[in-house]
Amino acid sequence: MTPTECAGWLLGHDDYLILSHIRPDGDTLGSGAALVSALRRAGKRAYCARNPQLIDTYAPFVAPYLAAEGFAHKTLVAVDIADEGLIPDGQDGEVALCIDHHPSNTRYAKSLCLNAGASACGELVLEIIKALGNGVTKAEADLLYIAVSTDTGCFMYMNTNADTHIAAAELIGLGAEAGVLNNLLFRTMSRARLLLEGMIMSGLRFYRDGKICVAEVTLDMLERSGATDNDCEDLAGIAGRAAGNVISITLRELEGGKCKVSMRSKPEVNVSDICAVFGGGGHAMASGCTIMKGVEPALAELLAAIDEKWPA
Amino acid sequence: MTPTECAGWLLGHDDYLILSHIRPDGDTLGSGAALVSALRRAGKRAYCARNPQLIDTYAPFVAPYLAAEGFAHKTLVAVDIADEGLIPDGQDGEVALCIDHHPSNTRYAKSLCLNAGASACGELVLEIIKALGNGVTKAEADLLYIAVSTDTGCFMYMNTNADTHIAAAELIGLGAEAGVLNNLLFRTMSRARLLLEGMIMSGLRFYRDGKICVAEVTLDMLERSGATDNDCEDLAGIAGRAAGNVISITLRELEGGKCKVSMRSKPEVNVSDICAVFGGGGHAMASGCTIMKGVEPALAELLAAIDEKWPA
Repeated sequence: MTPTECAGWLLGHDDYLILSHIRPDGDTLGSGAALVSALRRAGKRAYCARNPQLIDTYAPFVAPYLAAEGFAHKTLVAVDIADEGLIPDGQDGEVALCIDHHPSNTRYAKSLCLNAGASACGELVLEIIKALGNGVTKAEADLLYIAVSTDTGCFMYMNTNADTHIAAAELIGLGAEAGVLNNLLFRTMSRARLLLEGMIMSGLRFYRDGKICVAEVTLDMLERSGATDNDCEDLAGIAGRAAGNVISITLRELEGGKCKVSMRSKPEVNVSDICAVFGGGGHAMASGCTIMKGVEPALAELLAAIDEKWPA
Repeated sequence: MTPTECAGWLLGHDDYLILSHIRPDGDTLGSGAALVSALRRAGKRAYCARNPQLIDTYAPFVAPYLAAEGFAHKTLVAVDIADEGLIPDGQDGEVALCIDHHPSNTRYAKSLCLNAGASACGELVLEIIKALGNGVTKAEADLLYIAVSTDTGCFMYMNTNADTHIAAAELIGLGAEAGVLNNLLFRTMSRARLLLEGMIMSGLRFYRDGKICVAEVTLDMLERSGATDNDCEDLAGIAGRAAGNVISITLRELEGGKCKVSMRSKPEVNVSDICAVFGGGGHAMASGCTIMKGVEPALAELLAAIDEKWPA
């Protein structure tokens, strides 16, 4: 389906419940809420499904669109959800339409509107809302700006392309308050996050002339900083900031003497091979495993496995 | 002068030396180097003036354009320099042309091409290079992308507008490697910077229910992290990241028992009034002063002055 076909389809149905994916981010939430707003302006009944993992940052933006008790939907729409397995538990029923930008979409929905070249699903939803024919409101522009900016790390990640910037320019022209939203989404940090991130950064360890950078997140650090799940997004990205690192390792201590390991790498090393030694896996440049030991012995085993797979 | 008039002027002169401002940033350096490249392609002799404060991050990008020993310029052009006082020492002679985007430009140059609405000087230089009539090379697009992205904090600061994103889209279309440059400019941090920033963040102190956030940068922290001037850009911005802060204070310990104080605030408090108590000043939301005491007594005096000017 093209955006125009998708808009026609949406105008032909009603009683929408819009799904966001598990561990919802700004793209699935912002895109879904903007779509709900536009559908309501087109005379439809539409709500965002409640997502139990909604974090505080996004909650106020989504709140006006959340499903009321007892709403009986007829049409289930998945937004930014590549696979059925990413739908939160308890959202049963056939997905009538999926709007997505993941090349890996498993085509589980009855109908699909996919733009695999878009850096964020919000870019595609902008096109669909425009095709609905009633313009784009300031609130929708804000929501779609949240979608586009968060999925590209404020236009910093490798997935950012010229079309991303064109969409951002259009959304700002439609009234999106980019400066205010950026401050909230990318600059402001909770006190706990600042303290935790500071502890992680000041405790970084370097091996092999800085080619390996190791971060640890201990239970003690979580307790001292007062961090909750809201404060623990993308901690595994911190060690990768170190200039010259090829492999970054984040060891998160778990209860019971275990460690969750996240590894990131540059193209010259395949960290999924290294995680496989410990029964884990993932992608070539982003993998993970769990080691049934404390931080120090787990790290010693990881460094030995790296020396074997990627000799100095 | 419009960009087209400016291009005509540039084609009518020769033997260019392009000046960058003191404490040179990505905008003055990237814009200047791109202009030199384009002028050379237009058959001119053109060089960037050597800037003694050039930091390592930008040095490799500027290197191919730096003035050789003994080059005798005829035409001095200032890029992104709002006032004569911001020209590095030793660059004498009349400035024939200034290309700038600061509304505060003091009109010191003989000719001026000013776009006070541009978020970065690089946007204006892009228009001028296009008006020169020989297109824009990939190297120039990279340099101008550096200019635009650094002056807007990767499109995060309040000065970012729709035109900024349109310029970024155009530069990416011209071959700018945004992802690679972003990684270098915004994500990668030296080991010393990571350690120093970590120490500052994990040592943040909060007063008045978090409305006041205090960072300290001691001589001991600088020594332990191994930080040099290259690692100390915008340390005063760290405390301002704390959610809910109205005033952020950064105390940097100096040799001889003194403190350099930087204060930032939200619109409800004028920190230049508070810094004035200690003989300092600046802008309403960004001011500084020097206190002839160590960190702890200086902080006690600052908090007392705040309580007086902005009672709890």
